[in-house]
Amino acid sequence: MAVFGLHAKFTALPGKRDEVVDILLKAASLMSDAEGCEFYVVNLVPAEPQDVWITEFWASREAHERSLTLPGVRDLIDDLIPLLQGRGERVELLPQGGHGLPPS
Amino acid sequence: MAVFGLHAKFTALPGKRDEVVDILLKAASLMSDAEGCEFYVVNLVPAEPQDVWITEFWASREAHERSLTLPGVRDLIDDLIPLLQGRGERVELLPQGGHGLPPS
Repeated sequence: MAVFGLHAKFTALPGKRDEVVDILLKAASLMSDAEGCEFYVVNLVPAEPQDVWITEFWASREAHERSLTLPGVRDLIDDLIPLLQGRGERVELLPQGGHGLPPS
Repeated sequence: MAVFGLHAKFTALPGKRDEVVDILLKAASLMSDAEGCEFYVVNLVPAEPQDVWITEFWASREAHERSLTLPGVRDLIDDLIPLLQGRGERVELLPQGGHGLPPS
């Protein structure tokens, strides 16, 4: 089971939310092939139309960090940054158990 | 794929965090049998030792609401509330795609 997780929020500039979602969905498809990626889902927030939350779970922190060096990921990050406002939000998680993650 | 998700934060009273985790893990096991429950993981937060985050994804909002009426869930909620401080936090999510959720 994953030992590292993230709830990460991005706030899009006005009119850019759908572009942010598209980029993050492209990232999700790259991440799905990344070693140790157990969960990577892109979410809208009904109450906050400019926000996009990512829910991620990884077999290790190191696997997550390595994924940021995968071919194409850096380009997506460069595409993403100009579309965002503020610094977003990020909660690092230590999964303790539950339902839905692959067993260790 | 799930159409409803939640990032939900509970803040435990001092000395009660582990009890909160135990109760939420019991809830997770009940939820794993709930119709439409695709993901329910209990997380600690290294940066906030009193916080416990739940990451949930459901086939529908209604499936999530029905789960709160399952036998035993109400008792767990009643056990949980006295251990908490403040109102916690809750972000409702509309998953758009990604990796790790069962296909529709």
